[in-house]
Amino acid sequence: MNEATPQHKKILVVSAHPEPRSLNASLAAFAVDELRAAGHEVQVSDLYAMKWKATVDADDFPGHVADRRLHVMAASERDTLADRLSPDIAAEQEKVRRADAVILQFPMWWFSAPAILKGWIDRVFTSGFGYGPALPPPYGEGALAGRRALVSVTVGARESSFSERGIHGRLAEVLHPVQHGLFWFTGMAPLEPFAVYAANELPEDQFAAAKREYARRLAGLFTDEPVPFRSLVGGDYDHDMRLLPGVEAPGTKGLDLHVRARG
Amino acid sequence: MNEATPQHKKILVVSAHPEPRSLNASLAAFAVDELRAAGHEVQVSDLYAMKWKATVDADDFPGHVADRRLHVMAASERDTLADRLSPDIAAEQEKVRRADAVILQFPMWWFSAPAILKGWIDRVFTSGFGYGPALPPPYGEGALAGRRALVSVTVGARESSFSERGIHGRLAEVLHPVQHGLFWFTGMAPLEPFAVYAANELPEDQFAAAKREYARRLAGLFTDEPVPFRSLVGGDYDHDMRLLPGVEAPGTKGLDLHVRARG
Repeated sequence: MNEATPQHKKILVVSAHPEPRSLNASLAAFAVDELRAAGHEVQVSDLYAMKWKATVDADDFPGHVADRRLHVMAASERDTLADRLSPDIAAEQEKVRRADAVILQFPMWWFSAPAILKGWIDRVFTSGFGYGPALPPPYGEGALAGRRALVSVTVGARESSFSERGIHGRLAEVLHPVQHGLFWFTGMAPLEPFAVYAANELPEDQFAAAKREYARRLAGLFTDEPVPFRSLVGGDYDHDMRLLPGVEAPGTKGLDLHVRARG
Repeated sequence: MNEATPQHKKILVVSAHPEPRSLNASLAAFAVDELRAAGHEVQVSDLYAMKWKATVDADDFPGHVADRRLHVMAASERDTLADRLSPDIAAEQEKVRRADAVILQFPMWWFSAPAILKGWIDRVFTSGFGYGPALPPPYGEGALAGRRALVSVTVGARESSFSERGIHGRLAEVLHPVQHGLFWFTGMAPLEPFAVYAANELPEDQFAAAKREYARRLAGLFTDEPVPFRSLVGGDYDHDMRLLPGVEAPGTKGLDLHVRARG
């Protein structure tokens, strides 16, 4: 290892595909192997193998009194702070807490994460853990600041259709709820997503090429520049969380308003 | 009823909140009452009450041979066309098929639908039903064309933060995977979303105001202009699904590229 090599880190890989022989499972296993070979410590949450419960309900909150009205965010916050969340949730929170980086590996279904992964997000990132009144403000300085975050996604469509003029929109726009809404909101620094397109019938040589590219991205997990989203506290927003006039380059519109110009 | 009154229609309300006394449950019940009072036929899928299974797996596809590799899209298409999907999925498909409009009522969790609703989307809109090789092309002319679609969402944040300069982005951008990626992709005509902001502690007078506004939106379910997304087949895109040069107004960027200028 030379001086430029990142130090030994802890990485959580969360994987969400029902088939252990799927492309997604292969990519998750590849990431684990690559990261361990680089000296990192890797934990895996294989949500299907774990039979992860996807649905938030009163059972998640042992402090909830039966027959009382369930206020999800309030119950979530109360039981997080009282350290009495459902054990499966508490275990995943501990994995995230220990991690220096979180990787989400999933097939894009209906332009977002499969329900089982959405349920991991819904249930794990409780008020009091991922955000909350006693924690740093969201977006950049948030509760989980200091961690890196990477989406690795397989997409059935071709890459040409996921561009600014492509009919599906840019991948960054489609993944905005995860990249900006989950990662950046909770303080994690999101990298550009890694995507394998035309993934339903990927020829062997393209799978090999995808692995080479993914290896490069994994090697840069702690050194690549994250997406430079603007910070709530960085002076760009007013008290109503609106971008101040004139901070953007002329002509900037839409979600690009919330990204700083790259150096 | 005067001549401008829409005719008797069939409407499916899909609701996704664990608490029957929640704001979401109230809004779903309000919609059902309003629509029935207007003479429409309403079906309800209350996903928590139904204990809807959120997670796609091999059990969804009775034609899947155990120990074979599960290709989700292929299995979904094969069992849809063979009319042997899991009965809970088939029942929901029949509700959508019969409906002239679909309303999704949900709390925004992590800038998207709760996992149980994502699981309704993942499992119900199979290849062969929502899209597929033997069906009309996606986006506008799609498999479920002729139907209207409305998101009714409750949001914890204030409205000011959900605007172009608001830190979360415009609601239309945050909901792009549902509005454009689910509704429009399958051919349903999406209306502008209806949102209740600052929903965690909504004062009674604001709830009353929200219901008045929602009543207005429900009354326009079949007459309001849908979001004018561009059609794949309408001549705006090339064979790689990329928007043709120059069809947009000068300076248009991001997801707005895929919306026609409003008359």
